[in-house]
Amino acid sequence: MALSIVEAEAPFLAAAGGRASPVTPVWFMRQAGRYMPEYRAIRAHHSLLDICARPDLAAEVTLQPIRRLGVDAAILFADILLPLVPMGLELEFVSGEGPLIRNPIRRAEAVHALRAVDPATDLGPVLEAIRLVRRELGPATPLIGFAGAPFTVATYAIEGGPSRHLLESKRMMYEAPELWHRLLTVLTGVLGDFLAAQITAGAQAVQLFDSWVGQLSEADYRSYVLPHSRALFDRLTGLGVPRIHFGVGTDHLLETMAEAGGEVIGLDWRIPLDRGWERIGANRAVQGNLDPVALFAPLPELRRRVSDILQRAGGRPGHIFNLGHGILPGTPVDRVRAVVDMVHEYTTQGR
Amino acid sequence: MALSIVEAEAPFLAAAGGRASPVTPVWFMRQAGRYMPEYRAIRAHHSLLDICARPDLAAEVTLQPIRRLGVDAAILFADILLPLVPMGLELEFVSGEGPLIRNPIRRAEAVHALRAVDPATDLGPVLEAIRLVRRELGPATPLIGFAGAPFTVATYAIEGGPSRHLLESKRMMYEAPELWHRLLTVLTGVLGDFLAAQITAGAQAVQLFDSWVGQLSEADYRSYVLPHSRALFDRLTGLGVPRIHFGVGTDHLLETMAEAGGEVIGLDWRIPLDRGWERIGANRAVQGNLDPVALFAPLPELRRRVSDILQRAGGRPGHIFNLGHGILPGTPVDRVRAVVDMVHEYTTQGR
Repeated sequence: MALSIVEAEAPFLAAAGGRASPVTPVWFMRQAGRYMPEYRAIRAHHSLLDICARPDLAAEVTLQPIRRLGVDAAILFADILLPLVPMGLELEFVSGEGPLIRNPIRRAEAVHALRAVDPATDLGPVLEAIRLVRRELGPATPLIGFAGAPFTVATYAIEGGPSRHLLESKRMMYEAPELWHRLLTVLTGVLGDFLAAQITAGAQAVQLFDSWVGQLSEADYRSYVLPHSRALFDRLTGLGVPRIHFGVGTDHLLETMAEAGGEVIGLDWRIPLDRGWERIGANRAVQGNLDPVALFAPLPELRRRVSDILQRAGGRPGHIFNLGHGILPGTPVDRVRAVVDMVHEYTTQGR
Repeated sequence: MALSIVEAEAPFLAAAGGRASPVTPVWFMRQAGRYMPEYRAIRAHHSLLDICARPDLAAEVTLQPIRRLGVDAAILFADILLPLVPMGLELEFVSGEGPLIRNPIRRAEAVHALRAVDPATDLGPVLEAIRLVRRELGPATPLIGFAGAPFTVATYAIEGGPSRHLLESKRMMYEAPELWHRLLTVLTGVLGDFLAAQITAGAQAVQLFDSWVGQLSEADYRSYVLPHSRALFDRLTGLGVPRIHFGVGTDHLLETMAEAGGEVIGLDWRIPLDRGWERIGANRAVQGNLDPVALFAPLPELRRRVSDILQRAGGRPGHIFNLGHGILPGTPVDRVRAVVDMVHEYTTQGR
């Protein structure tokens, strides 16, 4: 008589689905990046956009933190602004200043001129990198695909780069709401197709980064953002992968972002994990929420902070350990590795 | 028989004290500044630090928005970092980049080396400007003095300028908490003396700007900030002026900031005014909370937003209308003036 062998579910996928797992999974936003010597070695010879355009390099960079840190998920190395390039925007990365768009969208004509995108051809290297990474990863380490949320991508497209006050974006909302909604609708289509293609290529989960949405009041979020984010989540329904909805400074938006969608809601470091989880409801999973700066703290202080988060999670199924935002340049790699070990040790002992 | 004449209380002071007033008072953070042509005319010949050092100029700039806008309070033109100069820090303002401190505080020796400050001599021009302004203002327009909160001033002193992640400040908290508390204690003493001197010179209310505190979790706020902010508020108890406690991105800190002190709590634009007020309690007054970017919106949209805030305030005593943060450069002056009129018209009709 043959035994039916059930392969153990990867802890990340179990937690993302709200199911029990033998250990709390942990990964880090920006786990591939400048803080890591092996990443800097590649960056010494290749620009960020070069790496994104070369599947072999993107795959290599994606895999670096898996080897070095022992995290429970990989996240594709890419940039949330890549889809803007085939749409017709001129994107570059200026050293020390981040992304810069040479022809930001300020008028109706610019929105009308945006080109349609076919992910298979226009974003082919990203999809190929996903296929390469999947070949290398074992079943215990799922690969997360991602995109920027329509709002956050729109703010870059309009402002031309990072912006403290989002002045031009909000002006478009208030002065030309129809144009705003048209732009967001176009972006939602492109980003939805892109995420669906990532899933087809092998992404086992997707994260939507709405990094700047915390700048909006709840009323503005409801009017100008929620319908588009919800349409994007709806586009991905039934594709069989968990969806993570992430923002920063969103204490005042948590319930509303959850309403827009996502099986997993990201909590930044400002919100005690238990209170945030209670607010969005036990039927969702949560991801977070260590302050990225805590990775610079001495080990005992770091341990205290990691333990506090795990205690607040209380061993309930559905917690993915992560930072509240991305790893900062200059972060000591050994501390990042130490957090992985702390989370695994603490949650193994507790179960 | 002589009638006893009771002078009507200024609407700003009535609202700050939670008392009824015939109209909702309105003023704007950064109501004197670059958006105003008459301010730019003075700045064409004088640096920001020059203006702060010359009582006649500081007084003139303070009075400009009173004449132009019809606001219900003046706020002294000064900068929250001025007290750092007599303490020994080298402050300058770099065009387009904001404040820069050439010798930021990174080590214990730098904290020990901070000099004691006597506001009467070291910050004399600020106090003289207060006296000059008071002579010009009628009883209906009180003058607000202000200081940065110990935390926010400390972050500038440590980072050397504005900082997105407050990396060095948090590192000091986590690595050298005793040093952090020593620095904050020193700053609390200096800022408390400064505010007390402003009150003696004629400031009829004071506002504490804790502009960056929204970067902290509640737990960190409690450990590293609250004792110092509370000590500062306590230092000002019994001096007979209302105290305004202001922060940005503080939805997760509202109750805790109220615990630290202030008769009036500032609400930024992210928080619906009624919900924020309910959370901090009806025994406090509130100030806010229009999005500064709304001043760029077309008039009907601006009117809708102003009305919404006033409706949420519901005519209850204790609301001071303001922005959720300072006026941005480029703001149309006529819209600012229009908001003053809207607030006055709306709240006069309603009473």
